[in-house]
Amino acid sequence: VERGEVLAVGDELTGGDRVNTNSARVADLLLGVGVEPRFHTTVGDDPLDLEEAVRCAAARARFVVMTGGLGPTEDDRTRAAVARVAGTDLVRDEPSWAAIRERFRARGLRPSPSNELQALTPRGGRVLPNRSGTAPGFEVRIGDSHVFAVPGIPAEMEVMVREQVLPRIRELAPGAGSLVRKTLHLTGITESALGERLADLMASDHDPRVGITVSTGIMTVRVLASGPDPAAAAARAEATAAQIRPRIADLLFAEDGQTLWAAVGGLLLARGVTFALAESCTGGLLSRLLTDVPGISDVYAEGFVTYSNAAKTRSLGVPEDVLARHGAVSAETAAAMASGARTRAEARLGAAITGIAGPAGGSPERPVGLVFLAVDLDGRVQVERRQYPGDDRGFVRERAARDCLFLIRRALLGAV
Amino acid sequence: VERGEVLAVGDELTGGDRVNTNSARVADLLLGVGVEPRFHTTVGDDPLDLEEAVRCAAARARFVVMTGGLGPTEDDRTRAAVARVAGTDLVRDEPSWAAIRERFRARGLRPSPSNELQALTPRGGRVLPNRSGTAPGFEVRIGDSHVFAVPGIPAEMEVMVREQVLPRIRELAPGAGSLVRKTLHLTGITESALGERLADLMASDHDPRVGITVSTGIMTVRVLASGPDPAAAAARAEATAAQIRPRIADLLFAEDGQTLWAAVGGLLLARGVTFALAESCTGGLLSRLLTDVPGISDVYAEGFVTYSNAAKTRSLGVPEDVLARHGAVSAETAAAMASGARTRAEARLGAAITGIAGPAGGSPERPVGLVFLAVDLDGRVQVERRQYPGDDRGFVRERAARDCLFLIRRALLGAV
Repeated sequence: VERGEVLAVGDELTGGDRVNTNSARVADLLLGVGVEPRFHTTVGDDPLDLEEAVRCAAARARFVVMTGGLGPTEDDRTRAAVARVAGTDLVRDEPSWAAIRERFRARGLRPSPSNELQALTPRGGRVLPNRSGTAPGFEVRIGDSHVFAVPGIPAEMEVMVREQVLPRIRELAPGAGSLVRKTLHLTGITESALGERLADLMASDHDPRVGITVSTGIMTVRVLASGPDPAAAAARAEATAAQIRPRIADLLFAEDGQTLWAAVGGLLLARGVTFALAESCTGGLLSRLLTDVPGISDVYAEGFVTYSNAAKTRSLGVPEDVLARHGAVSAETAAAMASGARTRAEARLGAAITGIAGPAGGSPERPVGLVFLAVDLDGRVQVERRQYPGDDRGFVRERAARDCLFLIRRALLGAV
Repeated sequence: VERGEVLAVGDELTGGDRVNTNSARVADLLLGVGVEPRFHTTVGDDPLDLEEAVRCAAARARFVVMTGGLGPTEDDRTRAAVARVAGTDLVRDEPSWAAIRERFRARGLRPSPSNELQALTPRGGRVLPNRSGTAPGFEVRIGDSHVFAVPGIPAEMEVMVREQVLPRIRELAPGAGSLVRKTLHLTGITESALGERLADLMASDHDPRVGITVSTGIMTVRVLASGPDPAAAAARAEATAAQIRPRIADLLFAEDGQTLWAAVGGLLLARGVTFALAESCTGGLLSRLLTDVPGISDVYAEGFVTYSNAAKTRSLGVPEDVLARHGAVSAETAAAMASGARTRAEARLGAAITGIAGPAGGSPERPVGLVFLAVDLDGRVQVERRQYPGDDRGFVRERAARDCLFLIRRALLGAV
């Protein structure tokens, strides 16, 4: 296993305008070639800060992957900073400059003079051609470290890391082996209680390494194993996972990064249970999550987003007197929505969410965060009432969708 | 303006299992109290790496905010690492331990022995109570630097930074002033062409700082200004923005981090245009985005997720012969879906998306990534055909929803 570092560049990242998704993706890819990113650094466009970050990364990691700062504008300073730390200057790479001109020509455009800057590369470095964008990347040696720079646009970054950086690392470090991660996802236990069930495996000297992370009620147990090749590393990770599974069998709902929605969508597909969705306060979020699953259209009969009472009655057949007597946010309405969606769409399962996501619309009897969830499977209806804390619209919507997925899962498993 | 650093802790972050959203959020909050995060560092749970990261951050920033590693399990090592770098040891904070026990008691549970670890805090530090979770945070002085540690759970982190860290920084650095960011969001221009329009403002010594970032076809111009107080900083940022706006007036669709969907939702609300949505391949994504906008239910008549031809006919009234002659993925079907949604829901505007998100389902005539978008406003129908590259389901879905939002926007603006 070799030491790695991921270095993301951009004021929009250090300033918090934008969440940095590239570093996690690069890190994930590096594990596969036996490089463990020990640090991620994010630095802004300031030239001195950027040099400091490059120097520091090159000093502590054998492989450094930089993303961003290769654009054509004034604030793109990765090329210059890396050249200075490497003690060299920038030269124009003629094939890159030809490729940039050709790229513009093919789109009926002319490159700006500033695009010429994108063909500059540190002298003595290797150019990494970019087949999906304008800016080429490069590889430069700084001390014992190999520093790779690729664009920050995620789609370009992904292709260049996969096609050029990873094979090059394999070539430079053929003995690095592989790191393989297994994750087990569960719910319904506190972190401390889970930690005690797994204490022997979580000691800092345990190999494979075992850790726990928490995210709004979902726990993930993480196993990281190394081995001379991917199969050997995977076997070691699996051996540890096999020790963990019996200790959490009652709580486990997915493995290896599978999301809750993919797990539930997979269950619906595997059992061939056709379904329909009726959403009020989640506004299509539940539908959006389940349709992330490729092939789901085989069993997804139809979805309805019905905020208004009129739509609930027209499209779902919720009786007007149910709405009048119990209100749109009630167990009765949730049940009628689930059953109505199921019946209208001629599906086996109907699921519904109705509630008050906020920030406005609450009342003393029905405060913001009050949500009713319902599932009707073959005519058997289950309803749950939830009161989520706070008045954050996004939080209430996400929790409601997630809990509805758990409810669908329980209905499906109970129906076996 | 003071130098800051954000330090996130966790193997799940360095390993790329999970995207680090905390650091961006903390950075955004720090700007408001005049602290500019020059670096973000992410480090795993390895004790020596963690110490190195703390040492490095404390050496280069006056204010360091750490997130994560305060849980009750073996792999939570922030407390110990900070204490070692500060040259001190850990002591149990009795009020924190009492609060932890009380928290468990209130939920009818007992703390695990491991929860007692969460009451440990570096000797000589200040405890930061946590009113929404188990783990308290702390503040420790290391050299000239103030190091704050808060839990990694986003909701807890947010409350503690807002309520405790920011006021404390104001107290320690009353003269830091404020940093204010303005962002202008636009589309329909290359990055290099935009850079040339703004070249004079983007010079590295220009104050306020101006930069450009790109994300799948959307450009953001970012202005960062400092001043003795928020109002003065905002005025300086606005003065620069006022220089930029006339240069990009034709392309600008939103400002200050407003999303495209918020801009379009705001337009629908401001004009009181009721709308209905019909989605096939995006599966509710468009609906989910527009319903992120508080109050949108005032104008959102109804949404339909119709994968099957049967659902398109039943709920949207798409004629069977249109489906038979042109197929579900066609300009004719898209138009019929938009008009059908509008009519069924008795709305003024109907928008529809039908296409092939992949990875399966493509054919030579209708490859993966082919999408038709339609908008019907008061009976005037516009249809667009798009062929997105690649076969990434998520990418195709996001681009289709985004382009449909642009189409809705153009229809609304053209209708004035």
